[in-house]
Amino acid sequence: MSETYVGIDVGGTNVKIGLFDSELEQICKTSITTNADMGPDIVIDNMAKTVEKLVAQAGLSLENITAVGIGTPGPAKYSEGIIIKSTNMPKFKNVPICKMLNEKLGAPVVFDNDANVACWGEYAVGAGKGVKDIVFFTLGTGIGGGIVSNGELVHGCDENAAELGHMIIYPDGRRCNCGQRGCVEAYASADSTARRATEALEAGAESSLKKVLDEKGRITSKDIYKHLAAGDKLAKEITDGTAKALAITCINMLHTTEPERIVFAGGMIAAGDILLNAIRGFFDEQIWKMKKESVEICFATLGEDAGIIGAAALARHARQQGNL
Amino acid sequence: MSETYVGIDVGGTNVKIGLFDSELEQICKTSITTNADMGPDIVIDNMAKTVEKLVAQAGLSLENITAVGIGTPGPAKYSEGIIIKSTNMPKFKNVPICKMLNEKLGAPVVFDNDANVACWGEYAVGAGKGVKDIVFFTLGTGIGGGIVSNGELVHGCDENAAELGHMIIYPDGRRCNCGQRGCVEAYASADSTARRATEALEAGAESSLKKVLDEKGRITSKDIYKHLAAGDKLAKEITDGTAKALAITCINMLHTTEPERIVFAGGMIAAGDILLNAIRGFFDEQIWKMKKESVEICFATLGEDAGIIGAAALARHARQQGNL
Repeated sequence: MSETYVGIDVGGTNVKIGLFDSELEQICKTSITTNADMGPDIVIDNMAKTVEKLVAQAGLSLENITAVGIGTPGPAKYSEGIIIKSTNMPKFKNVPICKMLNEKLGAPVVFDNDANVACWGEYAVGAGKGVKDIVFFTLGTGIGGGIVSNGELVHGCDENAAELGHMIIYPDGRRCNCGQRGCVEAYASADSTARRATEALEAGAESSLKKVLDEKGRITSKDIYKHLAAGDKLAKEITDGTAKALAITCINMLHTTEPERIVFAGGMIAAGDILLNAIRGFFDEQIWKMKKESVEICFATLGEDAGIIGAAALARHARQQGNL
Repeated sequence: MSETYVGIDVGGTNVKIGLFDSELEQICKTSITTNADMGPDIVIDNMAKTVEKLVAQAGLSLENITAVGIGTPGPAKYSEGIIIKSTNMPKFKNVPICKMLNEKLGAPVVFDNDANVACWGEYAVGAGKGVKDIVFFTLGTGIGGGIVSNGELVHGCDENAAELGHMIIYPDGRRCNCGQRGCVEAYASADSTARRATEALEAGAESSLKKVLDEKGRITSKDIYKHLAAGDKLAKEITDGTAKALAITCINMLHTTEPERIVFAGGMIAAGDILLNAIRGFFDEQIWKMKKESVEICFATLGEDAGIIGAAALARHARQQGNL
């Protein structure tokens, strides 16, 4: 019998849902508005109905679904299938999402946090394919993380492992949103990169970015990488700070779980080779000389679909491991 | 049939060998001089003969050995059972130690690096017993590490994971023996702690340690903790630097593999509660406030026998997992 996996990526604004075959090739996908303010019963019912429509569209029925994977931001008790609470979905409190979906769809449901799900997607069919050990970073508002060690996601004792944005690399350094000082996230997320540039401009630094700040009232990491490409000196200084912080974090992960590949994802990788080469440059400069390291530092390849592919891939993995 | 495990801890000076039952209770143990300059054939033959004597002493024969575990410093291809080279045993080059021991003893042999073996010992029957996720540090000349994640040692893609002493916590900071700058080992190993104090004294710092340095020509971390207990201000400053560096590293590991316990071993833990409480204090001060962390930071309990117990425990684990 052929296998069909459903991947669901739940965000505060949209829910993306995809149908995949046993090779994780996409059969079809769709996106619906989350309507989080309608509360968990309606939101989850909408998800289930959308899955049913997708399945019908593929000429299948619910009985054909092998397993369902779902990813959401935390905090949640993933192994128990329960969303504890959600910043983007305030009405979601202690919601047994796996049980609710299972009752509606009939298929077993696996659940993990959005960064782990995207990490697993890259591991299964994206930039991490073919190796057993990867580390994954998303560079967005904050910095999310995921670790695959010896072919399994690292979850930790309380399902909060791989909060890699909160590794401290500059003790007593910049204050992070988490309350710590000196987290890599406080230097190298897209938001922190923009913030460091803004602070420098406000302190009087000369830069072609000044005009952008004056006109738009704010600058983004995208602006900074654009001005870097045009040769702006402040943009170089700021983006070097970003790349160096990320390189130090890569070195620390190499000495921790020793990945074969380190994969960067998230909005800021739109900066392209200029970012990737800077990270690699600082990595080569800062890494030990005890032995030659051959870890590959690269960008994610699945883009926006990492969430649905990863969720489906997790469902397939759980099935293959006999955990469903 | 009852099980009997052999644990072998190979050092440059001595080889320790222990015999353990299925509960890892010690049956008997001994220690022989390594005589590394006699070369691998004789050294390994001596090990095998010593195992045979121990077994006889316990009223058993070689046929009763269920499996053998062995730990050595790297670099080695552990999964292939080969010592590539050894700083303390220069004649050991590309030595297939597992195969050689297996031919002499008849039992299957498992092999890992000394820090992983000690980590596994603490995990199996020591300070890490009863949980599935621990991180382990040895504080000696350098800082060694081990990680158990979800009940398995983390080996990494090239069997060099958990080089935790080389996590960079002060970028562009003190030069480490490994060639990097700012490694935790460059601040918080026993040797680095002594070195920082020596440098401060040489730069003119006032301290009761000055007399020790003048009289002995050198100071050790033991001297520093002794003078700390007596209220010396420089000793406080130096040991605070050590504890803070270790605390930052604990925080970084919490955000990486999320251990339930963090276990410190090695010569410097002789400093006792004054060290442990300082690490805990800096940890509490520097950790995020997003959620309450309940990781236990504690000292190893197996002492000098961690190597033989850990090696025997690894052999038992490999057997239980069906890997032998």
